Amino acid sequence: MERFAIRGQICYSENQKTIRTIEHGYVVCEDGKSIGVFETLPEKWSGIPCHDYGDRLIIPGLIDLHVHAPQYPFRGLGMDQELIDWLNTHTFPEEEKYQDLEYAKKAYTIFLDDLLHSATTRACVFGTCHPDATLWLMEQMEEAGLAGYVGKVNMDRNSPEGLCEESAKASAEATENWILAAKNLFNVRPILTPRFIPTCSDELMERLSGLQKKYNLPMQSHLSENLSEIDWVKELQPKATCYGDSYRIYGLFGGDCPTIMAHCVYSGEEEIRMMKEQGVFVAHCPESNANLASGIAPARKYMEQGMQMGLGTDVAAGSSLSLFRAMAMAIQCSKLRWRLVDQSQAPLTVEEVFYLATKGGGAFFGKAGSLEEGYEFDAVVIDDQKIRHARPLSVRERLERLIYLDGDARVEAKYIKGKQVI
Amino acid sequence: MERFAIRGQICYSENQKTIRTIEHGYVVCEDGKSIGVFETLPEKWSGIPCHDYGDRLIIPGLIDLHVHAPQYPFRGLGMDQELIDWLNTHTFPEEEKYQDLEYAKKAYTIFLDDLLHSATTRACVFGTCHPDATLWLMEQMEEAGLAGYVGKVNMDRNSPEGLCEESAKASAEATENWILAAKNLFNVRPILTPRFIPTCSDELMERLSGLQKKYNLPMQSHLSENLSEIDWVKELQPKATCYGDSYRIYGLFGGDCPTIMAHCVYSGEEEIRMMKEQGVFVAHCPESNANLASGIAPARKYMEQGMQMGLGTDVAAGSSLSLFRAMAMAIQCSKLRWRLVDQSQAPLTVEEVFYLATKGGGAFFGKAGSLEEGYEFDAVVIDDQKIRHARPLSVRERLERLIYLDGDARVEAKYIKGKQVI
Repeated sequence: MERFAIRGQICYSENQKTIRTIEHGYVVCEDGKSIGVFETLPEKWSGIPCHDYGDRLIIPGLIDLHVHAPQYPFRGLGMDQELIDWLNTHTFPEEEKYQDLEYAKKAYTIFLDDLLHSATTRACVFGTCHPDATLWLMEQMEEAGLAGYVGKVNMDRNSPEGLCEESAKASAEATENWILAAKNLFNVRPILTPRFIPTCSDELMERLSGLQKKYNLPMQSHLSENLSEIDWVKELQPKATCYGDSYRIYGLFGGDCPTIMAHCVYSGEEEIRMMKEQGVFVAHCPESNANLASGIAPARKYMEQGMQMGLGTDVAAGSSLSLFRAMAMAIQCSKLRWRLVDQSQAPLTVEEVFYLATKGGGAFFGKAGSLEEGYEFDAVVIDDQKIRHARPLSVRERLERLIYLDGDARVEAKYIKGKQVI
Repeated sequence: MERFAIRGQICYSENQKTIRTIEHGYVVCEDGKSIGVFETLPEKWSGIPCHDYGDRLIIPGLIDLHVHAPQYPFRGLGMDQELIDWLNTHTFPEEEKYQDLEYAKKAYTIFLDDLLHSATTRACVFGTCHPDATLWLMEQMEEAGLAGYVGKVNMDRNSPEGLCEESAKASAEATENWILAAKNLFNVRPILTPRFIPTCSDELMERLSGLQKKYNLPMQSHLSENLSEIDWVKELQPKATCYGDSYRIYGLFGGDCPTIMAHCVYSGEEEIRMMKEQGVFVAHCPESNANLASGIAPARKYMEQGMQMGLGTDVAAGSSLSLFRAMAMAIQCSKLRWRLVDQSQAPLTVEEVFYLATKGGGAFFGKAGSLEEGYEFDAVVIDDQKIRHARPLSVRERLERLIYLDGDARVEAKYIKGKQVI
């Protein structure tokens, strides 16, 4: 058994309404899992190694349910279009470059280094349709000690020549080979990643469904993000009763295999019902939805309905890997939605967005996103002393402030599954 | 004559539609003013001192048209209420503390240091109703080399006991004494600052109007920010044809004395017409308007109408002193407004928000907010090398990226009126 403790100003989400803080408290790790949070270190563990981080904040590692690694090079650029034009103008030309493994290595190295030094411990990542580059990304993520899922993207129609896979069969075969090649990775696992309905033919979806059953894979994709996209899906899948149903008819919409759908800005009652029944996770990406003028997802409604939900940065339609920024935007956008769209749905609170960024998204990984007993020991130590104040602040206030002002804070240490990675 | 040059990756706004960039260009300063931007240093100045900042970005100093210095201690905290409740719960209790000059010095020292190290060179600042603390703030701002206007706030009704000035007469007298006490300050000047109509009696407004005429003072206040506030002003000033008219009837609404009105989220046609006629500046504060769930100001409409406009951070209803964040939020909120409210008004562009944060707001100070000939030499040198990319970016792209990712950038040097302040 390997046991150790870390000590500091502890802060985690108990539930959607409550943040628990313990001043100068302890979290004890045993074989990669937390065995509890304590105000004083229990006698029986008095001899274990303990790293005391003093006045630093200790929070659970943040969970990014939706991020596109190959889009990192153009983050913060070219967000003057809506989804489909933005894909064609900015995204696809950049993603084409990843057929060149050397370019991919250069670009992914920057992404990985920034992800490592962020407060994110686990992420669900889109790669490109290129198996080699995607595998390299996974290997390096694992090597760096990060955890998560990475998907080789599938796209066999409505895509530029340089990105469009040769056929449904070729796309599925490349995907299967990539799944097999990733068999030695433990913390970074493959996730089935049909880009979205417009770029995936019926045959491809059927083949992916076969792969999902064969390898029992989780899945990630996009759903009901943009009005033109939704119209296009209706044309492409006239039989489907809603956008979500166009995945469901292939069996690719949750159920036995955990599934994340990014955005859900315009999910209607039927889609919501279907997602609840199938346990599909919503990756709420507020900054992306503002940057591409998609709209504001009804996150309050999804929480009230008890849907599974977490936050996504959605780089590069979101500009930053920071989940603190995503939390701030989730609150801000929910306030604008309350003001401009629907006053029956109260804005999100600090408690709620912190829950989404930790336990909410963490549920996709089993027991992740908390410091409580039984959770994976994913913890982030944050130095916020550059954010100065004239009066003393509580640990809860420091967390709230960090959500809005994380640019002035620094991740000092990070643990994933009990291993210190920075 | 004192002449020198700085060299770097230069970037400034020519007009609302155009950003000009000059790679490794020069800006020449003569006695505190720019005498031009050049691709190569003209022969006649070949001997002057030149600081070469290499690959660093050089932009005009940013202009913050609306910020509350005493609210800095609770930035990023307690934004779960609308305007009036937020004022009573968070703002007024904090501002009361500034009657204690020692507290004020401690708190303002942090504000000043962060402002100094930000990309902002000029700001229009609200103090509190306390003359001593406000004067101390002004003296320290001037001492640090910063420029701008600072206002001792006036409030003689609907305010908590600890902040409510004794009478209109006492408020006006304290204001006059403060104006006289500031006579030795040059770069940081007094600005008349009635908080807003709800806290200023008719008699106080009349007395302030008298002071404005006597001392030829600029003015700043709040306008049409929140729906409940607007209703309240209607009750308090039944004769006024709109909120703006409730200032105008005292002669306190632009004209000969430059005036800034923060927010203007709900200004109607008549208010707009009145502001245009009187040359009143709009301080557009998009983050504040989201945080307090006020709404989204129709910035596009104001630009189309040719109104004077700049950006404000509005700390602490805005969380950060960063005008880059304000620029990003201005774009993002304009996209949400386009999507959710009015598709006839296109979202703001990078060119437009950079204009607002420089020349747009700078016009309040005469010739400020550009590097072009004849403008005050206010320049900021920015180190953005932590924002890495896999491919080379143009200077224009680096500026765009900085707007979204300024948390990873650092102000390396700053010049105000030709004097290097950091």
